Amino acid sequence: MVKRNPHFSRLSKNYLFPEVTRRARSFENLISLSIGDTSEPIPHAITEAMKKAATQLGSRKGYRGYGAEQGNAALREKISEVIYKGKISADEIFISDGAKCDIGRLQILFGSDKTIAVQNPAYPVYVDTGLMLNQKVVYMECLPENNFFPNTFPDADLLYLCSPNNPTGSVATHAQLENLVQWAKKSNTFIIFDAAYSGFIQDPTLPESIYEIEGADEIAIEVSSFSKLIGFTGVRLGWSVIPKNMTYAEGGSVHDDYTRVVTTFFNGASNISQAGGLAALDHPDEIAKLSTYYLENARLIKKALESKECRIYGGENAPYLWVDFGKIESWDLFQMVLEKTKLITTPGSGFGSCGEGYLRFSAFGNRTQILNAVKRIETQWPEQLSP
Amino acid sequence: MVKRNPHFSRLSKNYLFPEVTRRARSFENLISLSIGDTSEPIPHAITEAMKKAATQLGSRKGYRGYGAEQGNAALREKISEVIYKGKISADEIFISDGAKCDIGRLQILFGSDKTIAVQNPAYPVYVDTGLMLNQKVVYMECLPENNFFPNTFPDADLLYLCSPNNPTGSVATHAQLENLVQWAKKSNTFIIFDAAYSGFIQDPTLPESIYEIEGADEIAIEVSSFSKLIGFTGVRLGWSVIPKNMTYAEGGSVHDDYTRVVTTFFNGASNISQAGGLAALDHPDEIAKLSTYYLENARLIKKALESKECRIYGGENAPYLWVDFGKIESWDLFQMVLEKTKLITTPGSGFGSCGEGYLRFSAFGNRTQILNAVKRIETQWPEQLSP
Repeated sequence: MVKRNPHFSRLSKNYLFPEVTRRARSFENLISLSIGDTSEPIPHAITEAMKKAATQLGSRKGYRGYGAEQGNAALREKISEVIYKGKISADEIFISDGAKCDIGRLQILFGSDKTIAVQNPAYPVYVDTGLMLNQKVVYMECLPENNFFPNTFPDADLLYLCSPNNPTGSVATHAQLENLVQWAKKSNTFIIFDAAYSGFIQDPTLPESIYEIEGADEIAIEVSSFSKLIGFTGVRLGWSVIPKNMTYAEGGSVHDDYTRVVTTFFNGASNISQAGGLAALDHPDEIAKLSTYYLENARLIKKALESKECRIYGGENAPYLWVDFGKIESWDLFQMVLEKTKLITTPGSGFGSCGEGYLRFSAFGNRTQILNAVKRIETQWPEQLSP
Repeated sequence: MVKRNPHFSRLSKNYLFPEVTRRARSFENLISLSIGDTSEPIPHAITEAMKKAATQLGSRKGYRGYGAEQGNAALREKISEVIYKGKISADEIFISDGAKCDIGRLQILFGSDKTIAVQNPAYPVYVDTGLMLNQKVVYMECLPENNFFPNTFPDADLLYLCSPNNPTGSVATHAQLENLVQWAKKSNTFIIFDAAYSGFIQDPTLPESIYEIEGADEIAIEVSSFSKLIGFTGVRLGWSVIPKNMTYAEGGSVHDDYTRVVTTFFNGASNISQAGGLAALDHPDEIAKLSTYYLENARLIKKALESKECRIYGGENAPYLWVDFGKIESWDLFQMVLEKTKLITTPGSGFGSCGEGYLRFSAFGNRTQILNAVKRIETQWPEQLSP
């Protein structure tokens, strides 16, 4: 028989969320504040656009087969215009079936034998894809002491930064990103900026894209998504920006190589999903309405938790609350909260060792459920965690 | 700056079809018999199912966010039942956004430092994904002499076999696949069986799946797709089968590891596309109608080519004609045919050195266009290629 891929033995046994699901399985009457999964319907104008696309596929005149692997030109143009105000050109934008999938393709682009720097805590996919492709991983501690943003950056080929951050809910400032970009240029590191939650930024002084920083287009890739923006978690649509200015140490265009990755490992996002994405960007009011809805959820959960003995971070420009319970281990916290309140949270340690002692509360959920969750926090909170 | 992924330098400069497009760009009034892209509308029952899915996503009650990365249970069940008559269980089926993308994920599963055996000629993606992930590639000559099926198999970890074959249009027989499966078991090789064109098989004695061969579920993965089956090239939907019986040399389940690949590098196919796939399998008559349509195109093109001095293979249980022009180089053939007839074909050498001297004619296309193409073959055929 064939030998196993040796790099797979470096993975921890279970992916975080399946493990959360497994542990919650035996409980009833659960409310999940765990996975960051959208709950609110997709606005009418957008579902109508997708229905129209499906109808067209059923007619001789409207039928289209393969689209460009890089995505439909109209959608790339629209993202260039609406999201990047023309700073990024349409041909620097690659439409995808979501940010998670693009992270995998970017790892393939840069390949094994690279060192990646990852925030600790972080979304587990950066590390897991890196390990599976034989990359070396170094960590950057993100704690309340440094406002969840690394003070110094390690030697690495690629540096992943997620802002608004999953799981800490923190958002990098202009000054922080300027430092990072300057450092990356000096130290020959590429930044992979995960902006999947940028739609939640309310504070106008905070940067929504790495490209708001001058010179970032020489060393930074940005990954983004329609998932949280407009409820497309199941519809699958995202994009990545690979600027044409990015070149390798020995010369040669990163954009050209990524084009090769996308045309070989991918075949385009669904044309129906792309029609939905195009319509979404024509309705910024609907996008704002959804973000505001989930942020109000965050405010309600935060308010309930404030009466308990824990420090709460995030939730203002991000749909996650990152809650510090001190010395108690995350999976124990998870279990206590689960048993007493039947609320599913996410143990902070699942995002890295610096998440130990934390729980992540997701603000995605229907208001009725969130109000129910709030009541449970207020009335059924575990005694060990109460003030 | 960061160094380029060294494995990328092993790739030939251009992916085949972009090069075809580039060369055809300056001509007018073209008819493409090149890329295998569906042209006929998606049947009404299927577009209606997708519209219904989009409508549901717009309602509080019907909204769903993330689905399982492995796909919706109902669709996995339906494929198990309709395609595999229960021989393969639903949890061995992984729903994907298409066969091409699954091939990439399977390469990630097995990893670098593996040797892959690939038919020559073959769909370029097997080799390109392999090279990009630092695999070694060995080739199996497929020529008229061996009925386009390898006589012997080389030492390799993975062996790719595509049947009905792209580009040769040949279909492996039961006896051939039995030989292959027996050899694979003895020589510790896994088979990756690409069945993306199985819907075109008309001859009931030919196997549509590798799992018709006893014991194949211990050593074979099957990749398949809705693209050609029901016109989903742009909608994006496929599946792969990773049997639970497959284990590594040192023990351990291949299925478990692929689950990890899929949950890390992927996030599920679009829920709207999946609703369409489910409806498609409820309408086998519609599937048959589309296959018959394209095979009639193949028959018409074949008939026109028969009057010219060339040997024609395929087209009876596959939507491709593989046409042997003897000593003339493929790109020269491509150019001659393009200039005289304004027909875009695919040069056989783009599929490997054994394709030199061949052109592939795709039978996808609307009948009016195909009849037009037939007329051009009959009346404007290059003199150098005429009898």
